Amino acid sequence: MSTPDLETRLDPAIAARLKRNADGLVAAIVREHGSGDVLMMAWMDDEALHRTLTTGLATYWSRSRRELWVKGATSGHYQHVRHVALDCDGDAVLVTVEQDGAACHTGTHTCFTDELSLTPGGDR
Amino acid sequence: MSTPDLETRLDPAIAARLKRNADGLVAAIVREHGSGDVLMMAWMDDEALHRTLTTGLATYWSRSRRELWVKGATSGHYQHVRHVALDCDGDAVLVTVEQDGAACHTGTHTCFTDELSLTPGGDR
Repeated sequence: MSTPDLETRLDPAIAARLKRNADGLVAAIVREHGSGDVLMMAWMDDEALHRTLTTGLATYWSRSRRELWVKGATSGHYQHVRHVALDCDGDAVLVTVEQDGAACHTGTHTCFTDELSLTPGGDR
Repeated sequence: MSTPDLETRLDPAIAARLKRNADGLVAAIVREHGSGDVLMMAWMDDEALHRTLTTGLATYWSRSRRELWVKGATSGHYQHVRHVALDCDGDAVLVTVEQDGAACHTGTHTCFTDELSLTPGGDR
């Protein structure tokens, strides 16, 4: 599969609520069940969302490899889906998961580890 | 200002770590300080990130209006910035805020209110 959205079994009632970007994707924000930690951001085409809702394993569209990507399929760091919620304008989903191992490919718990300093008054 | 990135005072050391999309933007995931609730997703150009880091008020790039957007400037629902962290590949920031009023323009606490049903076995 080299382009998203060619064939999908996503519920048409859900598909109709999505507002996809120019590449046919919606953003997926991934949060850890329990801790509430935001783990990573990825992208989904319709079929990735379908599989996320039906298989119990978070599945994304890899923009670099241009293929469906079951998170953990190579690393073992699967994400077991507990909740999925769409936002008000239909272009992002919040996926709540139980995370096996590290969410980030760098080996850290979350991908958001590069803290940027707040510099009040730095606008002057 | 009608296109992002024309002029910005963003720290060059931060700018060099950003991996912007074709529109010159990075995704901004907004989380509430304290509760950890994920409130919304928006987009930032370099100047929006600069202002977010320096003014204490979350500032985005409005893709529809094509202008910088201080969240709350019209609604009063400002977001007071407590932390900003960049992700491992530099294309998303996690912004932790204290939220005045409702984060969503629909009047709800968070934009992620449309819960999608998990249907195990629905893949068959």
